[in-house]
Amino acid sequence: MPSRYLSFRCSVPWLLLLLQALFLSRAFFAFPRADDINFSSSFYPVFQDVNHMVIFGFGFFLMVLRRYGYSSTGFNFLLIVLGVQFSVLVEDLLLLLRIQYSEFGVESLARAVMSMTAVVISAGAVLGKANPVQLIVMSLVELILFHVSRCINSKYLEVPENLTLMHVHLFGAYFGLAVTSRFPEPPPGLDKNRSSPKSELFSVLGTVFVWMFWPSFNSVLAESQFQAMLSTYLALAVSAVAAFMLSALTSKDGKFRMAHIHSAVLAGGVTMSFTAIIIKHPWIAMILGLLGSVISILGSHCLQRCFNPPLKLQDTSGVHFTFGLPAVLGAVAAVVLRVVQKGISEQWSDLPSLGYLIFLEVGAFCQTISTALITGLITGLILNIKLLKAVHVSKYFDDQFYWEFPHLSVGF
Amino acid sequence: MPSRYLSFRCSVPWLLLLLQALFLSRAFFAFPRADDINFSSSFYPVFQDVNHMVIFGFGFFLMVLRRYGYSSTGFNFLLIVLGVQFSVLVEDLLLLLRIQYSEFGVESLARAVMSMTAVVISAGAVLGKANPVQLIVMSLVELILFHVSRCINSKYLEVPENLTLMHVHLFGAYFGLAVTSRFPEPPPGLDKNRSSPKSELFSVLGTVFVWMFWPSFNSVLAESQFQAMLSTYLALAVSAVAAFMLSALTSKDGKFRMAHIHSAVLAGGVTMSFTAIIIKHPWIAMILGLLGSVISILGSHCLQRCFNPPLKLQDTSGVHFTFGLPAVLGAVAAVVLRVVQKGISEQWSDLPSLGYLIFLEVGAFCQTISTALITGLITGLILNIKLLKAVHVSKYFDDQFYWEFPHLSVGF
Amino acid sequence: MPSRYLSFRCSVPWLLLLLQALFLSRAFFAFPRADDINFSSSFYPVFQDVNHMVIFGFGFFLMVLRRYGYSSTGFNFLLIVLGVQFSVLVEDLLLLLRIQYSEFGVESLARAVMSMTAVVISAGAVLGKANPVQLIVMSLVELILFHVSRCINSKYLEVPENLTLMHVHLFGAYFGLAVTSRFPEPPPGLDKNRSSPKSELFSVLGTVFVWMFWPSFNSVLAESQFQAMLSTYLALAVSAVAAFMLSALTSKDGKFRMAHIHSAVLAGGVTMSFTAIIIKHPWIAMILGLLGSVISILGSHCLQRCFNPPLKLQDTSGVHFTFGLPAVLGAVAAVVLRVVQKGISEQWSDLPSLGYLIFLEVGAFCQTISTALITGLITGLILNIKLLKAVHVSKYFDDQFYWEFPHLSVGF
Repeated sequence: MPSRYLSFRCSVPWLLLLLQALFLSRAFFAFPRADDINFSSSFYPVFQDVNHMVIFGFGFFLMVLRRYGYSSTGFNFLLIVLGVQFSVLVEDLLLLLRIQYSEFGVESLARAVMSMTAVVISAGAVLGKANPVQLIVMSLVELILFHVSRCINSKYLEVPENLTLMHVHLFGAYFGLAVTSRFPEPPPGLDKNRSSPKSELFSVLGTVFVWMFWPSFNSVLAESQFQAMLSTYLALAVSAVAAFMLSALTSKDGKFRMAHIHSAVLAGGVTMSFTAIIIKHPWIAMILGLLGSVISILGSHCLQRCFNPPLKLQDTSGVHFTFGLPAVLGAVAAVVLRVVQKGISEQWSDLPSLGYLIFLEVGAFCQTISTALITGLITGLILNIKLLKAVHVSKYFDDQFYWEFPHLSVGF
Repeated sequence: MPSRYLSFRCSVPWLLLLLQALFLSRAFFAFPRADDINFSSSFYPVFQDVNHMVIFGFGFFLMVLRRYGYSSTGFNFLLIVLGVQFSVLVEDLLLLLRIQYSEFGVESLARAVMSMTAVVISAGAVLGKANPVQLIVMSLVELILFHVSRCINSKYLEVPENLTLMHVHLFGAYFGLAVTSRFPEPPPGLDKNRSSPKSELFSVLGTVFVWMFWPSFNSVLAESQFQAMLSTYLALAVSAVAAFMLSALTSKDGKFRMAHIHSAVLAGGVTMSFTAIIIKHPWIAMILGLLGSVISILGSHCLQRCFNPPLKLQDTSGVHFTFGLPAVLGAVAAVVLRVVQKGISEQWSDLPSLGYLIFLEVGAFCQTISTALITGLITGLILNIKLLKAVHVSKYFDDQFYWEFPHLSVGF
Repeated sequence: MPSRYLSFRCSVPWLLLLLQALFLSRAFFAFPRADDINFSSSFYPVFQDVNHMVIFGFGFFLMVLRRYGYSSTGFNFLLIVLGVQFSVLVEDLLLLLRIQYSEFGVESLARAVMSMTAVVISAGAVLGKANPVQLIVMSLVELILFHVSRCINSKYLEVPENLTLMHVHLFGAYFGLAVTSRFPEPPPGLDKNRSSPKSELFSVLGTVFVWMFWPSFNSVLAESQFQAMLSTYLALAVSAVAAFMLSALTSKDGKFRMAHIHSAVLAGGVTMSFTAIIIKHPWIAMILGLLGSVISILGSHCLQRCFNPPLKLQDTSGVHFTFGLPAVLGAVAAVVLRVVQKGISEQWSDLPSLGYLIFLEVGAFCQTISTALITGLITGLILNIKLLKAVHVSKYFDDQFYWEFPHLSVGF
């Protein structure tokens, strides 16, 4: 199919060029002089940590498929460098519309990198099924929608500025799921969507990286950084232990399954994303880490058997149970914790204001998840129009469709 | 052997659950509120460095065996997340018994991660031979014994608090050796305990990581951090050069041997662990790094030929010459250096007090090593009782015994 | 050829021993006491970043060849640990000759690690062709020459002290090219100088590492660190986007080529090395990043077709277009920027002083590049004398010539 290849050349480069020209002109007109930017040097290491986690960690975390190693890391990298620039542009636009105020600096770069997590998670759901054009369009649409959803939360639902960014996992997972449900299912006989021991080892490498940098991720924007860091660290430790425990319990013959470990080990971090800031007692963090791991592993069994087949949903790297379910748990836990904290401090005297708080918190959560699902479905439909030249199912999960191989043997 | 597999399911998960419940209840009753914990933000990057070294570095450093990649990283990860929590618990207990006083904070977490090095080293000695239950029991017993040995050193042998933790390599190596001597030897024809070029490359990746973070490790608890950091860096550099030199000298045909490089490159860091704090002149550090490398490579030849076969000792990843011998060298060097320093400052006038110093220093060293050996032997015997269902020698060094493989081909 | 192997054993170890003895005696006589060294603790994380980039990042970046994984990382590691010590020695010598003044401390170690980049880049050009003895001699000669070239720049051509170090990529690339042109070309049928998917993945891992730490590298010695960091980050992001764009445009069928991504992704960082300090507006950095990427990918096509074959030049890992051309672009851009900045601030009134500035800047650039080329040619000739026992072309690109393999199968 040479025509297909040629058409692919006609789209990606020009799309990238257009976007890059846009970012450049934005930088030309709107960026402050570098020496006007305020900068706290102590913030740089934390920014680097977030950078490592998103670029290196997630890039290798997604390398689960046997024949899709180049694309997993390569496209992840491309999406992030595009998205970070685009995210700064979107924040700018919101500033122009006076919806949100933020100064440019290393913090706004860190925020841009963090909001890319949503895109990376969604990309994990369509891993191997979407071509680069679809991925780029998806990431641009998703970033705009995520920032809009953040603005609604902070403007109308009184969510503190720094917490709005923590809906990133929730939004990313459900947006990705909705998008992937609009892609045709791969034929059952296809064996390219499996992992190999070598690809799993690279994925373990990425998982360990993500695990290690999660405390930094959750504490970047927190006021009491150490509290957030400590809660996240403990929750991650407990969920790692629980991951091994539950993997041996639920799998055949009592063996461990690497796919379980991958997902459940990170569940603690996801669960903590909303709650790390408000948890005062470490034991609450530990229990949430445990629950996150439980919900992730049980979810992986239930979803793959009962939920995905009737919906014809194929979630390649399991973002639903890795990021979606633990994020829901975290959001629910955050509501309960805030209500209880407020209740205790007011000695349960002002019930109407408590009710209002519940309304706001539940509203923010529902708004995020429903925006993600609805816009995700629409985006999924848009991505499958003829113009974007969706990949045929027989070409799914294959590096050879996107990358030149000067070598003879490819299987890795 | 389906009964074997089922019994494995009945042990690991419940053991993990029990331990985790213990840690949770400890956190519930004894942890201070997160905002009461004192915290210096400058300490966090160093804590992260130690974390990277132990979790990522050692996890991949141990990935030397051809068919044991999953277990090497996976079990290392499990032991560390368990052990860090348990270590905090043990320090708590010692606090309760008024043996040791320490406040909880990021420093106590760092200490917990550092003391896990002992367990990781011991786990390297029984790599591929112990099942997860045995590893967990071993790590719990070892942590208690290591903390007890530290207390004896600091209470009765006047070792400064921060130096006691630096016996971690010495203790870990000899404990692991004693434990592994109680395991049955694998049959001579078994070829699974060999490495492959791919597994070696992952192991090199881990080694480079451990190498890079060692200066942070040695300087975490030091008062003059830069001095410790600089000494360790120089010692590591010299021992890396010496590793290449000696590898070419001692191997057949003058080629390099990757196994030598692995061990000897790290010897400088191990040797410096006791001495980094007291070394005033960088050239002493460099000489110690050189000697560490020499002792490690010569040791690897002597031990594998003359020492291990008669004792029927099989030290899978060579912890004896990688960590044991350089740690002994470091301990001896520390005694000599302290005596010479004290002697020079007092102009050799007060010989009895010098003798007392020698007595204390040698005592601490002998106490650590003999505690490690004796308790290690006992632990090794305990680990091989029927209840813990030791692995049969024919199943040694094989991931397939512990992990589900959804793939057809496994060799990596 | 047993005699060959034996002779190899007779050279490397003794050369290493001699050098190490030299460094040791230098440390004995000239190092200050560790506690006399001034040290800013905030500098340590940045030093670690540079360390990671050079040791880990470049080590794995160079792992492109199918059968040369051990040597790529191993020899890179050896050269760096040797070179860092040697670099301190050379700085010392220059201090003794009163050419340059610098106090020993963590900054001088960071400078030593940074100047090793030149050697690593040159080693990339002769990757797989030079034996360890040749590499060691080359790195020692190159370090001396680089420091001499730096001194000329700072003494006679008024280049600020911290900018002289930024010629490191320019010097390294052209020195390496000149050296490699003196090595005999491998026979056209040889297939060992190709990459395999697995080796490429390790190389991607290294590239991502180098990419992430480049902002730290460029801002280590800058006065306004954040400005340099931000410019480099933006330039790197733009050049990564441009790399994907141009790779799809220039390759057959519109597919991506991993080799393009490797080189062009880093081009932004190289281009920024001279200019990061003087760029005031982020959009200039972004344009330079874009141009760097363009020059790198177009260069890779032109050089491999038109330039290398007539010159019989074989640049194994493509350092000419990865580091050489973008560094030239950066140097030219720096001249233009400085002249324009000075012109604007003086309102173009003092043309003679502008001319003098141009003369100095162009002079520094020409001096660096011509020194690199001329001395590189001479070094290349020296390296191929009989004494150093150059490898026969049939043994090029093969780990088995340098490393013991206890395993049966080697291809990786």
